Amino acid sequence: MLLEKGITKIRQEKPLIHVITNPVTCNDCANVLLAIGASPVMAEDPAEVAEITQRCDSLVLNLGMLNSLKKEAMVLAGKKANQKRIPVVFDPVGVGASSFRLRAAKELMEQVRFTAIRGNASEVLTLLHGEGREKGVDASEADSFGDDLPEDVKKELCMFSRRTGAVLMLSGKTDYIVSGAQIAMVKNGSAWLGRITGTGCQLSAMLGAFLAVSQGHFFQAAVSGACAMGISGEIAEGSLRTGEGSGTFHVRLLDALSLLDDKTICDNSWVLEEGT
Amino acid sequence: MLLEKGITKIRQEKPLIHVITNPVTCNDCANVLLAIGASPVMAEDPAEVAEITQRCDSLVLNLGMLNSLKKEAMVLAGKKANQKRIPVVFDPVGVGASSFRLRAAKELMEQVRFTAIRGNASEVLTLLHGEGREKGVDASEADSFGDDLPEDVKKELCMFSRRTGAVLMLSGKTDYIVSGAQIAMVKNGSAWLGRITGTGCQLSAMLGAFLAVSQGHFFQAAVSGACAMGISGEIAEGSLRTGEGSGTFHVRLLDALSLLDDKTICDNSWVLEEGT
Amino acid sequence: MLLEKGITKIRQEKPLIHVITNPVTCNDCANVLLAIGASPVMAEDPAEVAEITQRCDSLVLNLGMLNSLKKEAMVLAGKKANQKRIPVVFDPVGVGASSFRLRAAKELMEQVRFTAIRGNASEVLTLLHGEGREKGVDASEADSFGDDLPEDVKKELCMFSRRTGAVLMLSGKTDYIVSGAQIAMVKNGSAWLGRITGTGCQLSAMLGAFLAVSQGHFFQAAVSGACAMGISGEIAEGSLRTGEGSGTFHVRLLDALSLLDDKTICDNSWVLEEGT
Repeated sequence: MLLEKGITKIRQEKPLIHVITNPVTCNDCANVLLAIGASPVMAEDPAEVAEITQRCDSLVLNLGMLNSLKKEAMVLAGKKANQKRIPVVFDPVGVGASSFRLRAAKELMEQVRFTAIRGNASEVLTLLHGEGREKGVDASEADSFGDDLPEDVKKELCMFSRRTGAVLMLSGKTDYIVSGAQIAMVKNGSAWLGRITGTGCQLSAMLGAFLAVSQGHFFQAAVSGACAMGISGEIAEGSLRTGEGSGTFHVRLLDALSLLDDKTICDNSWVLEEGT
Repeated sequence: MLLEKGITKIRQEKPLIHVITNPVTCNDCANVLLAIGASPVMAEDPAEVAEITQRCDSLVLNLGMLNSLKKEAMVLAGKKANQKRIPVVFDPVGVGASSFRLRAAKELMEQVRFTAIRGNASEVLTLLHGEGREKGVDASEADSFGDDLPEDVKKELCMFSRRTGAVLMLSGKTDYIVSGAQIAMVKNGSAWLGRITGTGCQLSAMLGAFLAVSQGHFFQAAVSGACAMGISGEIAEGSLRTGEGSGTFHVRLLDALSLLDDKTICDNSWVLEEGT
Repeated sequence: MLLEKGITKIRQEKPLIHVITNPVTCNDCANVLLAIGASPVMAEDPAEVAEITQRCDSLVLNLGMLNSLKKEAMVLAGKKANQKRIPVVFDPVGVGASSFRLRAAKELMEQVRFTAIRGNASEVLTLLHGEGREKGVDASEADSFGDDLPEDVKKELCMFSRRTGAVLMLSGKTDYIVSGAQIAMVKNGSAWLGRITGTGCQLSAMLGAFLAVSQGHFFQAAVSGACAMGISGEIAEGSLRTGEGSGTFHVRLLDALSLLDDKTICDNSWVLEEGT
């Protein structure tokens, strides 16, 4: 269920990924894409985004540090990507944190067809329920599903995936990837990934690269992306010596991604699959 | 005069810190907060900041790369923080560098009550005098006070602290922390902290975390924050080997912060205190 | 043809460099300037840029992630720099990628006199031809000139340099520096420089520092800047051990820049020169 030769294809085809994201993680997103062999472009002014997307192989939209101008740019870029039929990833960062973001997310969901949606459990479930933490799902509760997503939540996710046509990825200790009736659970990862900022944003950006070379195998591309990040996290954690912490982990994560190949993914992936 | 179990409390309570800062240092600020166990959120659009602040445990306002929209967001977030009675840190980056920033700083000082104000000597003295370098204090002169802040300046700072109700921190070779009549001098630190960008912004962000768990012991929280950064700088400097410079220092600083505990702070802090 | 004691002068004079750039690379630009001994300031609001430029020793304008407000700020800062007669560097990032950027670049070229223009081959040639990829030069073709810039292109560059009065730098496997009839080729460098984001932006920022201390020897300053980055890249690459990749390269590049001295540049520079 991995994308065959995913990393090899990315390194050969060097897909150009348009990422509209936030100042906190944009440097890391660009470096992660370069590390796996893709090319990033981060334009975000409404005056040029459609023209930029036009030349790209996939688009990644990230809600972090949203503002009105960027939302307008995301709609324009998203529509162009749909028109050009290239994959579009949505990362609804903090969608439950303000009504401004929730409204923007709803508008984006209405205006743009997404190929994949990636967030933590509470973010994806907030999108699904169309309401924030106060009225709907509690973030900490949702995030604590951990290894054990309840059956009714799985069914809701499958329906949400069918309704939107998007592959869903809920990142956490276990990553859940849902596409229609298919569910994969990726158990790779490291607790250190949560101790540096932006590894979620980076995974969404990487997802853009895997989807770009997937020739329509979106589910496999998403599973491969989750494995690539999880395994690189394991390699980085395994390299830490006494006195080394989150600074060194960050560096080694990028090292691991830049040296990653399909054999390493294949040999180390830990994926469980089920249908509903 | 250190905050008892400051780091332990941050790691246990995981306070949520709203930081409105600049693109140069926002990634570092987020990583430093995660390293010491807090959670960062960096929203800065006026449309959502009040709602974000509402959920946070403290707020940090940083003038770096100021623009009009961000200033508006800072006022809204600051008022909400005051209303919610959570600590607010002000970092008047480059306040003497333009009349735009000086006016914005004055407006913020009028509209928002700050729990702590942290900057280099010239920035804090520019705030105190309400005028920039041309007419008022000379930056390089002010910054060169070094280990020896003149008595009249100390008195002015004490009065400024009383008038504003804020703990003042003047960072430099020696960090001065002033609260009413109390003055502490933190002698920890490393010259390397000045050779990478944003360690001042990072200290302000960390201050937000220490204040959030301080239960009103703001002076002790500020002293602890200054010690935490200074000691981590010493650890990072001590680890440098031949051929290693500012890149490695940056990584090891984050390593040290992510491994820091209260015993290390207690055993290595070098603080002198005096009253006026 | 190197600037005599370039790095020494930067470390002694600590020139203040105003950089208007993009969120992806602004942190790296600031750290690179600090590493070689200069001081960065990144203000970009039209309300304050002229006042900031007024106090600086050179100005660097970078088109990455351009927006309308930033373009306005660039014009204001550029005019102030011209008026104050300090060096101005232009980095036309992605100028061929959208008509918005091309128009902005043309406006900047009309309103501001540049001391140096640095980009990859396709960016500089797009500026030269005044049109983007679709109608004019093909980016990938231009970038593949590699070690062998055709004679007619060299002549065009010399004329473009004369017409604009700017030193041109085309970065690539070989860096071409063109000033009037003078052409220098810098062969220093590492393939790893292209595997992390923003090394072009960083070189442009560094160029601002070399020009600031050059006392009018702009061609030599540009050659020295290219050598400084290329040699630091070689040192960083040479330090990589098994399992280390782009994360470690990034750290070691900054290490090398922070330890760089004029003797290292002099002993390791690989520069060929020709006149036309």
